[in-house]
Amino acid sequence: MNKPVDTNSGLSRRGLLTAAGGLAIAAGAIGAGGMAAADRFTRRDQPASPASMVEPFYGVHQSGIVTPQQTHSIFATFDLDTSTRADVITLLKRWTDAANRMSRGETAQPLGQPKDAPALDGGSAAGLAAARLTITFGFGPGLFTRDGVDRYGLAARRPEALVDLPKFNGDQLIAEKSDGDLSIQACADDPQVAFHALRELLNLATGIATIKWVQSGFTSPPPAGGTTRNLMGFKDGTNNPSTHDNDLMSKMLWVGDEGGWMKAGSYVVVRRIRIALEHWDKTELGFQEEVVGRDKAVGAPLGKTHETDPLDLDAEDQDGNPVIPATAHSRLSSAAENDGSQILRRAYSFNDGVGFYAERWPPWRQGMMLDAGLFFVAYQRDPRTGFIRINKKLASLDIMNQYTTHVGSGIFACPPGAAEGSFIGAALFEGLTG
Amino acid sequence: MNKPVDTNSGLSRRGLLTAAGGLAIAAGAIGAGGMAAADRFTRRDQPASPASMVEPFYGVHQSGIVTPQQTHSIFATFDLDTSTRADVITLLKRWTDAANRMSRGETAQPLGQPKDAPALDGGSAAGLAAARLTITFGFGPGLFTRDGVDRYGLAARRPEALVDLPKFNGDQLIAEKSDGDLSIQACADDPQVAFHALRELLNLATGIATIKWVQSGFTSPPPAGGTTRNLMGFKDGTNNPSTHDNDLMSKMLWVGDEGGWMKAGSYVVVRRIRIALEHWDKTELGFQEEVVGRDKAVGAPLGKTHETDPLDLDAEDQDGNPVIPATAHSRLSSAAENDGSQILRRAYSFNDGVGFYAERWPPWRQGMMLDAGLFFVAYQRDPRTGFIRINKKLASLDIMNQYTTHVGSGIFACPPGAAEGSFIGAALFEGLTG
Repeated sequence: MNKPVDTNSGLSRRGLLTAAGGLAIAAGAIGAGGMAAADRFTRRDQPASPASMVEPFYGVHQSGIVTPQQTHSIFATFDLDTSTRADVITLLKRWTDAANRMSRGETAQPLGQPKDAPALDGGSAAGLAAARLTITFGFGPGLFTRDGVDRYGLAARRPEALVDLPKFNGDQLIAEKSDGDLSIQACADDPQVAFHALRELLNLATGIATIKWVQSGFTSPPPAGGTTRNLMGFKDGTNNPSTHDNDLMSKMLWVGDEGGWMKAGSYVVVRRIRIALEHWDKTELGFQEEVVGRDKAVGAPLGKTHETDPLDLDAEDQDGNPVIPATAHSRLSSAAENDGSQILRRAYSFNDGVGFYAERWPPWRQGMMLDAGLFFVAYQRDPRTGFIRINKKLASLDIMNQYTTHVGSGIFACPPGAAEGSFIGAALFEGLTG
Repeated sequence: MNKPVDTNSGLSRRGLLTAAGGLAIAAGAIGAGGMAAADRFTRRDQPASPASMVEPFYGVHQSGIVTPQQTHSIFATFDLDTSTRADVITLLKRWTDAANRMSRGETAQPLGQPKDAPALDGGSAAGLAAARLTITFGFGPGLFTRDGVDRYGLAARRPEALVDLPKFNGDQLIAEKSDGDLSIQACADDPQVAFHALRELLNLATGIATIKWVQSGFTSPPPAGGTTRNLMGFKDGTNNPSTHDNDLMSKMLWVGDEGGWMKAGSYVVVRRIRIALEHWDKTELGFQEEVVGRDKAVGAPLGKTHETDPLDLDAEDQDGNPVIPATAHSRLSSAAENDGSQILRRAYSFNDGVGFYAERWPPWRQGMMLDAGLFFVAYQRDPRTGFIRINKKLASLDIMNQYTTHVGSGIFACPPGAAEGSFIGAALFEGLTG
């Protein structure tokens, strides 16, 4: 209409921040016709996001695994529509480049296209900081074979550890919240930054992959520090393995030489766990603590004083009953009860409004209840000796199951990090022909 | 089991913060039996949340209307199950007390109950700050009459301005996201604080009201200041009336003497507006700007230079066409095109994952698409001359409708603020007998 062809370089995220924060002159310097001179809004040599807000994308491992947890998460899976391996590689290269750019607080693609073309970045994160955005990619079983078909000549490279999850006792999985050929988890300290990342990656997948499901979540660290609480009101993560313990991480988190192209990667299992929060909130405090096996206020194991006191699984009370009940969640999920198995949890709470549910307890009320709970995310070197072993026990014995229902599920091989100039999963495709 | 009856005073929100932040001795002072002495964790004289994080609940007006927007919002509506007005009053008193406490960073109810009783606060916000929590209550038409029945003897007091919204052109409302007898909007700078507030209020409603629907949302202000962007990537709110202009607020926002018991209250209209984001993101940048009527990068009206430049609705280009198209959203929603009507928008973006949708444009693709958009929230003195007038025009003419669909809706009378010792909506019930 009234405007000449222009560029939308003015949407550069870093540039806008710089302009607003430090260059008051910039706004006044825009031409009267509404044209923004690209160099006034982009200052490539001066990232506007403090370094503390940037989590590097390239590296030995993917970011978003041992990265200190951000406050917001969006997990999404995609199904591949294409019939060619070349398309899959194209998509992974696009995603790699965009993820690296966005993690630095930049637009998904370099701008500069004319106004009569779709924007190369939708702009919904313009002016926002990098916010410690991480984007973690995963490969589901469907990348290797789907319905028995080896679509991309990758079937022989499916890792042994990328098993199909067994059906666990109590599972009520729905297809609309489960599985997928590819997974993306975008985490950031700003929900709009995380959602922007998902949308840009979604746009880049057009014609190659279709989005299957999405799960958002949040976690709120106490301002004064310490362990965060989950929606059950208990501290959650006290016994999580320390990501600062490199030896431990090499042992239980990162894939080693056994993994071939997956070396330095990890496997993620996600579970959408609905919690009957109304029921939980009406449960006696003492019983809640028996369910968890911990004191609610402090987080100490029952019978102990401090949050970080180790669980004493042998302790008995004066009547000879275990102090931490046999059915307590913290007992059953402990390494000691699972042949030493450990997983790195990186879960988020979710709040998806309400749904129509039937209670499992008297008087079996039916009606609108919260559709909220825990989006469980756990990384490990091998799910067979990690999540699967632990959850088999929990699914059968954990008294917390009275309140929790697993309604969504997925398992994904998260390849190692990409080196600059390469792309996520490059090693998987090395040496393939045809 | 192994523990004596105890109190859960240790969950006091302010106390935990104080303990963790300034009293390292407190943790060590807990008794070996896991009992927390109440006075070690509660320091009523020293709120842990800085004053800047507390939005006072009591006042002439309800908080959460002219309050600078928090980053997170949860809107929920409830249907009343009770047959008695006394129960409604009981609920409003409970909600008032709890809302006041939580807005100060305290637990929903004073603690101190025995462990063999349900907790008086679920603890999911223990250790978190007040985070500028506001809780804004509204009364829907159903409080006054439902299905033609005057359940609570309030029908004669239904405000004239609390009309049923008309059906607008293009509405595709679903009952599961619309209406309700009572509304609550909990806004905070922390999603877990907002969700905690909703849950505690939900628990307090047991037996009196049932939750009907919930909508969460977020908004991310640029760290460097300025107008936030919506999911369309445009600055949103540039022309919102200034809440610092008391005369203007008295004119267009707050109910005056005409309102009786609603004086100093306001009416809120909410609309869950799904946006076809995939389609929008593939739309040419220039056309996006014609849809909005503004430059995308800077936010200036088309043909102007600065974001805050007024819209020139009469400007024509060299061919005699309007510079701001006749169908542009900013033109059609402007006060100048609506007999001076203004509303105070306080909207949040939402991201509810994906759903199965059919596109409205060639090639009419069907499949999984984002279920995301804008949860529109607008306050005004009278919806008949506010939202209804403006939206009638928008629903018919706004070219943005190509991308947007109104799928949820509600209208609520938000009574004036409560004085300390009183309760929300008290004036509505004054002088009623029987």
